[in-house]
Amino acid sequence: MKTKNPLLVPELRELLDAGDPKAIQEFFESGPPALLAEFVSALSSEEAWAILRQARPQLRSEIFSHLDEDLQVEIVKGLTRPEIASLLTEMPPDDRVDLFKQLPESLQESVLPALAQAEREDIRRLAAYREGTAGAVMTSDYATLLPEMTSSEAIDHLRKVAPDKETIYYAYVVDGNRRLLGFVSLKDLILAPRDAKVRDVMHPEMIFARVDEDQEEAARKIQKYDLMALPVINGNDALVGIITYDDAIDIITQENTEDMEKLMAIAGRHEAGVYLRTPCWVHFKNRAYWIVGLAALGLVSGVIIHSFETTLMQMLILALYMPMVADTGGNTGSQSATVVVRALALREIGPRDIHRVLFKEFRIGILLALVLMVLSFGKIMFLSRGSEIPAGFSLAQIGMVISIALALQVITATLIGAMLPLVAARLGFDPAVVASPALTTIVDITGLLIYFSTARLLLGI
Amino acid sequence: MKTKNPLLVPELRELLDAGDPKAIQEFFESGPPALLAEFVSALSSEEAWAILRQARPQLRSEIFSHLDEDLQVEIVKGLTRPEIASLLTEMPPDDRVDLFKQLPESLQESVLPALAQAEREDIRRLAAYREGTAGAVMTSDYATLLPEMTSSEAIDHLRKVAPDKETIYYAYVVDGNRRLLGFVSLKDLILAPRDAKVRDVMHPEMIFARVDEDQEEAARKIQKYDLMALPVINGNDALVGIITYDDAIDIITQENTEDMEKLMAIAGRHEAGVYLRTPCWVHFKNRAYWIVGLAALGLVSGVIIHSFETTLMQMLILALYMPMVADTGGNTGSQSATVVVRALALREIGPRDIHRVLFKEFRIGILLALVLMVLSFGKIMFLSRGSEIPAGFSLAQIGMVISIALALQVITATLIGAMLPLVAARLGFDPAVVASPALTTIVDITGLLIYFSTARLLLGI
Repeated sequence: MKTKNPLLVPELRELLDAGDPKAIQEFFESGPPALLAEFVSALSSEEAWAILRQARPQLRSEIFSHLDEDLQVEIVKGLTRPEIASLLTEMPPDDRVDLFKQLPESLQESVLPALAQAEREDIRRLAAYREGTAGAVMTSDYATLLPEMTSSEAIDHLRKVAPDKETIYYAYVVDGNRRLLGFVSLKDLILAPRDAKVRDVMHPEMIFARVDEDQEEAARKIQKYDLMALPVINGNDALVGIITYDDAIDIITQENTEDMEKLMAIAGRHEAGVYLRTPCWVHFKNRAYWIVGLAALGLVSGVIIHSFETTLMQMLILALYMPMVADTGGNTGSQSATVVVRALALREIGPRDIHRVLFKEFRIGILLALVLMVLSFGKIMFLSRGSEIPAGFSLAQIGMVISIALALQVITATLIGAMLPLVAARLGFDPAVVASPALTTIVDITGLLIYFSTARLLLGI
Repeated sequence: MKTKNPLLVPELRELLDAGDPKAIQEFFESGPPALLAEFVSALSSEEAWAILRQARPQLRSEIFSHLDEDLQVEIVKGLTRPEIASLLTEMPPDDRVDLFKQLPESLQESVLPALAQAEREDIRRLAAYREGTAGAVMTSDYATLLPEMTSSEAIDHLRKVAPDKETIYYAYVVDGNRRLLGFVSLKDLILAPRDAKVRDVMHPEMIFARVDEDQEEAARKIQKYDLMALPVINGNDALVGIITYDDAIDIITQENTEDMEKLMAIAGRHEAGVYLRTPCWVHFKNRAYWIVGLAALGLVSGVIIHSFETTLMQMLILALYMPMVADTGGNTGSQSATVVVRALALREIGPRDIHRVLFKEFRIGILLALVLMVLSFGKIMFLSRGSEIPAGFSLAQIGMVISIALALQVITATLIGAMLPLVAARLGFDPAVVASPALTTIVDITGLLIYFSTARLLLGI
């Protein structure tokens, strides 16, 4: 009982050269489409098509849908118009429109007339929704029922449409204007008496998304309510598509990657499976955007440091501990920001909880500050035991002042880290936009101000 | 067409006080169990049970399963043994065992004898698997078929077991020893001729997990192969459970949170929905763990800075730019670490790709270094135009030296950031363990060494 590793790529090539149709059919039966797609992915676009064209149309489109979009586009570019049309026709509507949008405009225009009217209109309709909305990720492959059908009629209907639909396990009940009335699961229908009306079996209270809703919102509904699919309705409350659970998993993964990257100040949308294939300059661009912005923001720190140049000249020991204060503030602030960004993303808290969150972070900040104050005092007494101290001051005195400044900075940074994502959320921005490197640079500024003010005040310099 | 907000919490309390059974039944019909659970969550454990006890046993257990584990435990503590036994019996096996494990030991022991033998054994069996494995998240609620059944017998069988099974849309085909032979979807059965044998309809090549496999591996298989459920087999290749897609979504979300928190040096496992309810000292402990470790590691930076104290005294301007070099290294290193950690988590790259990844990051690092070198040179010429420069040196000369050191540090930090997660992965650790704050502290050390060495070498001090 082991997933057979169907074929190694060189063997797949050999098989292709030998042109033995039976061996190729065996390959097609050796695993699920996603696994076959992995093997096909390792081939050139010409080789990939040479294999794929020998599959049954439905399996072909399933394997093809699992290939990376880049390879899909490469393959399509090498096909004749009728081949493209037949491939597109067999694909699930959501994957089809994604591919279509990637094609060069000239190819789009030449392919559209080769499609049947239904597919053509479906593509036009789905392509109209903005990237990142529920409308852009939904599929139009769903089964609908009428409320006055009996459960046995409904089952017969589902059996009839099953080959063409992505899922028949959820069916949506609509009225004559396609307004969504409710949904039934196939399990509900199977368990209901044969003559029970769909109207009486269906769940009338529905969870749904609107076409212009954020794709992550929609995916989180699927997660929260353990749905197999989520219906999507337009401005007239008419059912126009569904989002299936497998797309929800992919959306959640993509959004998580983007949140993590934003948190580390990396710009750009993240498409799946691309690290090695993304050119260096794209990686560079995504990262430089922020890094350059931060360098500019760093000017403020530079100005502050320079305005205390005389103080630092008198008391070099203060300069030696600037990096420690800056780093510690950055670390504690990043921690609280991460926790808050994540809690917001998982809907554990909302922007309205700002007071409760800040009070909690304030207490956590105090605990961290106390521990770090003791540690840094010990560190200063140890590291600077041989350092030159200006006349009139003792090392312990200076060490205490630096530790107090550090403690104040830890509390401030923890609060700023928690507050910025909440404020961003309240203003309608993505909380993760307050990236950790940006936060580090911001708390550097507060840190330096706290550091030098405390030193001046307590040491009287 | 709007999800009715069934009741506000005060109204729910009122309804409870009025004791009107009809109104309470209406509440139960006002939305899916997950939504009802949200309202019940806002009540005290006594109030929650006062509502729940009025629901049909199956709905009760569904709502109850959607409550947070803390509230579940609170409620259970207030119940009689027969009440607990009946509640546990109705719950899905995977949620049941999760709750059971949270109960105080004395309660566990007193409840077990009140359960029927089947449930008792099921709990014992599921509780035996280590947290974080496929075995610990699977459910024992699945339907099995025998290979010699016909498709119509199979459908009848599924119809019969449907009320008790979490999913009947996938059924697993086993032999007399429960060895997994394949699976069929209900759709396959519906589309097959009535007298077709299950053996001939089933998919013999299976994707599965072993009981001791990491839960994230299992969840990623569900994602990759677009499965509705993944079978779990034991050491004898016998089917012992399934993991359903909705659990996979939760596992992926949980693992993402943990990765993100690790990246920010926050310890501890993350259970869903807990930010506000987690006590301050737990948050503190999870964060302090690393922060204190980093403060200790910061000693190394301190020693390096102190060993260059004389140099800094001679040339204070070098001290002023220490924070800039440290921050920039930390930011660029964190970016490359984040991208690599995520690419590893999504299986876009593996530890074997270390050379390709490092070469790519090297080139990205050079691009970033060039840009930052130019920016920092301009910044120094602007900020330090009034600063005192030791005799024999020009500001341009010192600015150039600092910018070169910064560029070297950016390249080094980018490479270290990419390398550490790959090395961790190769050694079998979680790549995300190389947290961004840890990385910041490590590249601080290399940064200071590069900074002072470059200054000494090029300025001859």
